Amino acid sequence: MDKKNIKIIVSYNGKNYCGWQKQKNSLGIQGELEYACQKAFKQKDIEIIGSGRTDAGVHALGQVANFLVETSIPVERFPEILNNNLPKDIAVLDAEEVDINFHSRYSAHRKTYRYYIYPSRIRSPFYKDTSYQVKYNLDIEKMKREIKYLVGEHDFCGFMSSGSSVKTTIREIYRADLFEEGDRIVIEVEGNGFLYNMVRIIVGTMVDIGRARINESLKDIIDSKDRNRAGHTAPAQGLFLKNVEY
Amino acid sequence: MDKKNIKIIVSYNGKNYCGWQKQKNSLGIQGELEYACQKAFKQKDIEIIGSGRTDAGVHALGQVANFLVETSIPVERFPEILNNNLPKDIAVLDAEEVDINFHSRYSAHRKTYRYYIYPSRIRSPFYKDTSYQVKYNLDIEKMKREIKYLVGEHDFCGFMSSGSSVKTTIREIYRADLFEEGDRIVIEVEGNGFLYNMVRIIVGTMVDIGRARINESLKDIIDSKDRNRAGHTAPAQGLFLKNVEY
Repeated sequence: MDKKNIKIIVSYNGKNYCGWQKQKNSLGIQGELEYACQKAFKQKDIEIIGSGRTDAGVHALGQVANFLVETSIPVERFPEILNNNLPKDIAVLDAEEVDINFHSRYSAHRKTYRYYIYPSRIRSPFYKDTSYQVKYNLDIEKMKREIKYLVGEHDFCGFMSSGSSVKTTIREIYRADLFEEGDRIVIEVEGNGFLYNMVRIIVGTMVDIGRARINESLKDIIDSKDRNRAGHTAPAQGLFLKNVEY
Repeated sequence: MDKKNIKIIVSYNGKNYCGWQKQKNSLGIQGELEYACQKAFKQKDIEIIGSGRTDAGVHALGQVANFLVETSIPVERFPEILNNNLPKDIAVLDAEEVDINFHSRYSAHRKTYRYYIYPSRIRSPFYKDTSYQVKYNLDIEKMKREIKYLVGEHDFCGFMSSGSSVKTTIREIYRADLFEEGDRIVIEVEGNGFLYNMVRIIVGTMVDIGRARINESLKDIIDSKDRNRAGHTAPAQGLFLKNVEY
């Protein structure tokens, strides 16, 4: 039997995980998926390739991954049988057979991240693992205007945590929106790629601008390429990888 | 010092609790609030009176409670000091001094409940403790029409779980709405009072009507006063006490 290349869409609540990758004492999301595949397909050597890592506590609405498998089970049944072998906080939403050359990471063209801010002096019993509680007054109209400076091709080296090695720090942002959804503020950023912690630093900078802790324009901060002029790194739990396009 | 009567608005995630009332091995929400008050005000005998009980796993966005306390701490500081003494899944949103005769249960005039349905064949890693996953196709337009039969004064004895003793099973519903919010369906019901499990049986009946498991009209089911003609009792985790009016 030939190996099939399977693309899956995965949603997960990152609260109880060390992130996408396995660590010393935790399988990580990737490891949980590999373990579920090995059980479901009775095959020892399945390797899951993700579109990218997510850090501890970060969530996904539509992470993409792929793996090679030899099986006669129809692909339509994969979500159900994988979900039966996965913890409740990870769910395979969809599965399809793709070209053997498809690679979740290398073939990715565009990613969208979503970040939830809960602007309130009092904590929420419901959002504590999925939002960033901000206790300060925020000038939302100003934030809506400022976030538009992200759009376009820029050198985002001021919006990267140290410790990452990349060939270039230039990225193109196609869309950057800030809007209210119920009692939360949503920031959505779509681009051709993101540097390490880039979205969390963008959100931290937007919050610092919104509460007037930073008084210069996001445009000048980007142009400065200076990490010290950008804001704090917003916490992991508000961040969701929304989708990946190919 | 005179005792002050304090009204508080409380939000809680019911997931880890046996409900509002204490049980053998759990304090319940009420007990957690009493314990927090006793620590905050260094007073042994504080009794919290809630507007009504909520069952295990049921949540609140705006439960109302009151208690008597002797303290010189200004009431504006109560939410902060109580929240510092409460678990993270319970939050006091507001506190105010009220007339000594105010009683959270007896003075309540109107309550609103909200229920979240997640209509999907595949589970959500985010909604499992706060929504009812329904795997069947639902006719939402039909559900929107049918739910309106709740409005008005009716004998809801067909919408009550056994084991409760009440003087009358007549209740007035002021508002009943069903609408989509993101990827979930919300049912909101506002009335002068609710029988035991009434909202959960209403939701179960609406789901059974939506999936054509029940084919008679909600109007006829109400008029029949027959628990066997109403639908199943929807699970606790989708239910939220939204607010209580006085």
